[in-house]
Amino acid sequence: MTALEPLVARTSDFIRDTVIPVEYEVVAHGRVVDDALRLDLQKKAKDAGVFGPLSDVRYGGLGLDTRAQARVLEAAGASLLGPLSVNGSAPDDGNIHLLAHAGTPAQKERYLAPLASGDIRSSIAMTEPAPGAGSDPSLLRTVAERTGSGWVINGEKHFTTGADGAGFTICVAATADGPTMFLVDQDNPGLRVGRRMPTLDHSVPGGHCEVDFVDCAVTGDAVLGEVGLGMEYAQVRLAPSRLVFCMNWLGLAVRAHEMAARHITGRSAFGGPIAEHGMAQGLVADSEIDIAAARGLIRTAAESIDEQGPASSAARHHASIAKTFVSEAVWRILDRSVQLHGGLGVCEDHLVARFLVESRAFRIYEGPSEVLRWSIARRVLRSVR
Amino acid sequence: MTALEPLVARTSDFIRDTVIPVEYEVVAHGRVVDDALRLDLQKKAKDAGVFGPLSDVRYGGLGLDTRAQARVLEAAGASLLGPLSVNGSAPDDGNIHLLAHAGTPAQKERYLAPLASGDIRSSIAMTEPAPGAGSDPSLLRTVAERTGSGWVINGEKHFTTGADGAGFTICVAATADGPTMFLVDQDNPGLRVGRRMPTLDHSVPGGHCEVDFVDCAVTGDAVLGEVGLGMEYAQVRLAPSRLVFCMNWLGLAVRAHEMAARHITGRSAFGGPIAEHGMAQGLVADSEIDIAAARGLIRTAAESIDEQGPASSAARHHASIAKTFVSEAVWRILDRSVQLHGGLGVCEDHLVARFLVESRAFRIYEGPSEVLRWSIARRVLRSVR
Amino acid sequence: MTALEPLVARTSDFIRDTVIPVEYEVVAHGRVVDDALRLDLQKKAKDAGVFGPLSDVRYGGLGLDTRAQARVLEAAGASLLGPLSVNGSAPDDGNIHLLAHAGTPAQKERYLAPLASGDIRSSIAMTEPAPGAGSDPSLLRTVAERTGSGWVINGEKHFTTGADGAGFTICVAATADGPTMFLVDQDNPGLRVGRRMPTLDHSVPGGHCEVDFVDCAVTGDAVLGEVGLGMEYAQVRLAPSRLVFCMNWLGLAVRAHEMAARHITGRSAFGGPIAEHGMAQGLVADSEIDIAAARGLIRTAAESIDEQGPASSAARHHASIAKTFVSEAVWRILDRSVQLHGGLGVCEDHLVARFLVESRAFRIYEGPSEVLRWSIARRVLRSVR
Amino acid sequence: MTALEPLVARTSDFIRDTVIPVEYEVVAHGRVVDDALRLDLQKKAKDAGVFGPLSDVRYGGLGLDTRAQARVLEAAGASLLGPLSVNGSAPDDGNIHLLAHAGTPAQKERYLAPLASGDIRSSIAMTEPAPGAGSDPSLLRTVAERTGSGWVINGEKHFTTGADGAGFTICVAATADGPTMFLVDQDNPGLRVGRRMPTLDHSVPGGHCEVDFVDCAVTGDAVLGEVGLGMEYAQVRLAPSRLVFCMNWLGLAVRAHEMAARHITGRSAFGGPIAEHGMAQGLVADSEIDIAAARGLIRTAAESIDEQGPASSAARHHASIAKTFVSEAVWRILDRSVQLHGGLGVCEDHLVARFLVESRAFRIYEGPSEVLRWSIARRVLRSVR
Repeated sequence: MTALEPLVARTSDFIRDTVIPVEYEVVAHGRVVDDALRLDLQKKAKDAGVFGPLSDVRYGGLGLDTRAQARVLEAAGASLLGPLSVNGSAPDDGNIHLLAHAGTPAQKERYLAPLASGDIRSSIAMTEPAPGAGSDPSLLRTVAERTGSGWVINGEKHFTTGADGAGFTICVAATADGPTMFLVDQDNPGLRVGRRMPTLDHSVPGGHCEVDFVDCAVTGDAVLGEVGLGMEYAQVRLAPSRLVFCMNWLGLAVRAHEMAARHITGRSAFGGPIAEHGMAQGLVADSEIDIAAARGLIRTAAESIDEQGPASSAARHHASIAKTFVSEAVWRILDRSVQLHGGLGVCEDHLVARFLVESRAFRIYEGPSEVLRWSIARRVLRSVR
Repeated sequence: MTALEPLVARTSDFIRDTVIPVEYEVVAHGRVVDDALRLDLQKKAKDAGVFGPLSDVRYGGLGLDTRAQARVLEAAGASLLGPLSVNGSAPDDGNIHLLAHAGTPAQKERYLAPLASGDIRSSIAMTEPAPGAGSDPSLLRTVAERTGSGWVINGEKHFTTGADGAGFTICVAATADGPTMFLVDQDNPGLRVGRRMPTLDHSVPGGHCEVDFVDCAVTGDAVLGEVGLGMEYAQVRLAPSRLVFCMNWLGLAVRAHEMAARHITGRSAFGGPIAEHGMAQGLVADSEIDIAAARGLIRTAAESIDEQGPASSAARHHASIAKTFVSEAVWRILDRSVQLHGGLGVCEDHLVARFLVESRAFRIYEGPSEVLRWSIARRVLRSVR
Repeated sequence: MTALEPLVARTSDFIRDTVIPVEYEVVAHGRVVDDALRLDLQKKAKDAGVFGPLSDVRYGGLGLDTRAQARVLEAAGASLLGPLSVNGSAPDDGNIHLLAHAGTPAQKERYLAPLASGDIRSSIAMTEPAPGAGSDPSLLRTVAERTGSGWVINGEKHFTTGADGAGFTICVAATADGPTMFLVDQDNPGLRVGRRMPTLDHSVPGGHCEVDFVDCAVTGDAVLGEVGLGMEYAQVRLAPSRLVFCMNWLGLAVRAHEMAARHITGRSAFGGPIAEHGMAQGLVADSEIDIAAARGLIRTAAESIDEQGPASSAARHHASIAKTFVSEAVWRILDRSVQLHGGLGVCEDHLVARFLVESRAFRIYEGPSEVLRWSIARRVLRSVR
Repeated sequence: MTALEPLVARTSDFIRDTVIPVEYEVVAHGRVVDDALRLDLQKKAKDAGVFGPLSDVRYGGLGLDTRAQARVLEAAGASLLGPLSVNGSAPDDGNIHLLAHAGTPAQKERYLAPLASGDIRSSIAMTEPAPGAGSDPSLLRTVAERTGSGWVINGEKHFTTGADGAGFTICVAATADGPTMFLVDQDNPGLRVGRRMPTLDHSVPGGHCEVDFVDCAVTGDAVLGEVGLGMEYAQVRLAPSRLVFCMNWLGLAVRAHEMAARHITGRSAFGGPIAEHGMAQGLVADSEIDIAAARGLIRTAAESIDEQGPASSAARHHASIAKTFVSEAVWRILDRSVQLHGGLGVCEDHLVARFLVESRAFRIYEGPSEVLRWSIARRVLRSVR
């Protein structure tokens, strides 16, 4: 871990010098976040030695534990495009983690290696339109049935993050033996990527898509890990994935907070710099406190993942707490940053306005705050019985 | 006032049957809010007998006091396009009010009559880029100098609402005798409308523009009311204008609240309809409370305008309180509505996502919450001395 | 209603000149709030012409509708002892209302007349220790059984407000025909007043007591109104009673707010009067907004009671909203007032500290905020079906 | 640090088995927190091997760094009397720290040794009544003048914590060479302890007193450390002292949170256990999140003290953040615990009611939240310049 501080510094430099200029083109001039942009930034990240915070060294990654990831991904998160540039963004983050945990050697070679290197992107097809599985995975309606040679999958998914242009999709489907995950190549004719849903966030290459599985035939070795363990694997993926979200968004909030502090230092009204007005100072202090608290909660959850394992009850509890608090704190911080920018804060070519809009989904994706609070409370209530 | 309830009901019917279908084209299919759309909707509003809640009957308006306006404009506000459709939206609302108060008979005939009838739109050029007048009007840098035949105006404005395509602009400029308002025809070659600022709100025809006054020559009768009374007139305009914002946005929040309530009634997860989960009920109750409180504050301020006058200290105090609370309550209500819609809530073709984004500027335009709190507190503190 | 403004002014004068000096003895020197104190203050209120805001003129009251009560009781509420002094405090307020609504002529003569005149106090025995009726009245365990000559009541109650020293108690008990209210004279040997519960509020003469009904025999005419209508009567009592709480406590919050504003005007730190520091101004503005919103919600609920009746669905909805918001707003206002007083704010001989502590129960008595939010949400959700 | 977990466990056991029974006598039966009670509990803490978390082993303490103190003092904080029992409560905590840092060998022997062992208590006289030094130390009015043989101190202090019965008081006074700290024996005839201020918190032996220094003569060796360094020493004391407050109060909040969780598990209303109602679960989750965030912030500040030193800019910043967040989080947690207990929650013989009242001053003592936010914001704003 001795090399951590230099790595964090290198990541910050890379974001500032290389990624933020591209981010400006995206936000102010409407440049689309596509794979050409992604591959260019990822190549530069490799050159800068900051690529792969979530991957093992055997796959060209940096081989960091979760605690170290928190430091690096907060630095990368300073730009909307930073996590993508270092290969530390959803949904690939979770899929890398999941494949490393549950994949067979052949699956790792075929799917994990090119995913970790950035040669391909991936997707995860979990969420279903009502009355299927939204926040509640028990409502799963996509079904996989055994055939002579493998399986055939049928069902509708939506919010399938990254589906358009992915190399493969991990599909969660019900089987006679319980929920199971399948690795489906994106060129499988039974996997039909529909429209990109017009979500408020625009920074994920591949978008959030509607995906239909129509008599989608896969071979037996498409089963990720074991049949019937889909929900267990989802749990393995969930805490790290929630936490990566937190790390990335916290980085963006920190940047917006600093932008706001700089903005009010340079502006005057009502007799002096805005930075000397008490109510503005109150907003700055509240954001500084939110940032410190968010950082502490991420660290606690990261330690729990590292020490008790990603699917342990402690890790899941701490990741739920972190996700709930950080997603709401990021929203507050970005909102205060907009407010401190005054009229400029609501101009879409100004970064903070875009950051605020992009971040809204964070309080819903990977578990809405209300569902997380419910699970947090139940754990507390069980513990006192 | 006996006709008020039927008028409110007619307005609600008009919004539901005529405006909301057009709103859907705007939000889901990107139809632009331009003057063709405006004129079509306003014609239909006239046919429905719901046009002109802010204008005197002599100008074809409904001749309502502020209390009655609150009821009608909340009903109109149920759609993003509702206030525009009935000619009850910014910046024309404030300009109608201002011209009725301070205009000469000739100015009323030339500017107020066609504005009240919807034949033209108007604009107001008050805010300036830093270091000019933003929230603090004392920093005014646009200057008007007397010439032999009238005045010549020079200065830069931005956030000039409605400028693109307006019939005229009310420009606030400094003179030797104090801040003064000028009525400038939009085809004056010295009035140069620059780019539309890319603000998060997209529903104002004419946008929020950068406007330069470059040796802009106007005749002596372009002075609105009297020379040197610009700030007094701004005060006359301010309380009613803030309150119209509140009425309109409250209507939208009420609609989003009902949409959310309906949504969770029809969805199930975790063992039952979402509407039966306590945390969802908590969000619903909080929005219901916010709506009731917002309505009460608007009514109090409306009464104060009607009884003490729009520039009275009481009216300004109550309008500041209403603007602060309502703008923040609307934000909370729309945010909860998004959250209750889950993933669909962050899809831009879903109305609540768009409503949330459009509403962000409400906490900044016409006085940011922090500036309003400052003025509220100072009035309280003066009163105890 | 033309006499309302002078009545409000008289009430304010009475509180300032007569009640607040006694309040100071109570708070700073520990004088006990007993019936001697009550009778003395009530006599002075009669002399000042401000006694009886909740009673009909035929009982010596002021004959006000609920809207007018809101104005007068806010003025009376400026002191912890104000509502008691004018006979406008719990539990007598609700019992006066209930007897006027449901009492027989004989019951009105025997119980309502002396209660309205302040000759006696009363009590209400509704709440039961677990597993009986707390917030949920359906869990009622106290039972009344018919005997030859009347009824015999058995059961345990607690939080029986005002029981110690009351003239009579209204007891809610289950019968074969449904919940029923009984008027029980306090000297009935079957009514046993136990200890005063050591609640945080100390300003109710008679306290909040544990009360046992042990073979408590009453005659047939002890039934208030009709057998089996106990829950309906509880509803008649509930909205007005919740609203009186709101009026009273709002008055206290307004006073604490003004005390805080005065305090910070006279104190300096960090380079100037605290009143000029932005964060202090923010607290002042937030309290001013809370007060205005609370006042508006009380007025809306009062109108609903006056126009639709106290047990109407609208009145109950608006009273629930008012109770939830006002009880929480009062807590915030008192808390800010403490904070603005700095160290002095936490001294028990300083009024604001005492006010804060006394007010805590307001968010629980007569319906905890969570139960009210639940009922508010269910009404909203029913309305969209 | 290998012995930390057993020490934490021992502390928890000691609190549960030995301290909480005494706490019950204090809260429910009014037993006074005096030195007899303190000495008895401290003797038992020594016997249990949990005494002295803040003292060096050479003084019989446990020799813990700040990180370890955080764990142990949170465990001790589970009871109102816990920190006192282990000698880890204000004002002795800060005075131990200060003497260890700035005391001469003779001062350590005379004052630190008996203080660390619990043989005596101490006091600190910093705060002055207006217009003296309250939150703003620059307003210091107490003066020390050199005499032939030493110094003579004159001035008024209040909120002098622990003064009644202390062995000595550290007095901050202005000198010609700047603010200076003096060690004054409590039996000095010029040190006059006045009344105990009737603060909402009652658990500090010695109370918060008014203290007058009247021609109070001390010898030259009464100067703590060096003349003119009083503010620097105050800074050395401040961050650790704020953090100890946080540790202690967090422990109490954790206990109240668990009490509330247990309470609602055993109670039913509205069709099921309260623990299954979503709004109650929301309160539980919010408290769990607050606790986790508070713990993280305390740890961050503790690390900063251990690694950068107690008077470093980083340590002061993190301690300010922790104090602000934790004091407000504790208040919220205790308030929710009261609310979840329903009516019982506002009974003073019930622990949570007492905890809430006792905790109110925590948001004011050692720096009100507003002053802390101001200093936090200024550090942020300086850093972006």
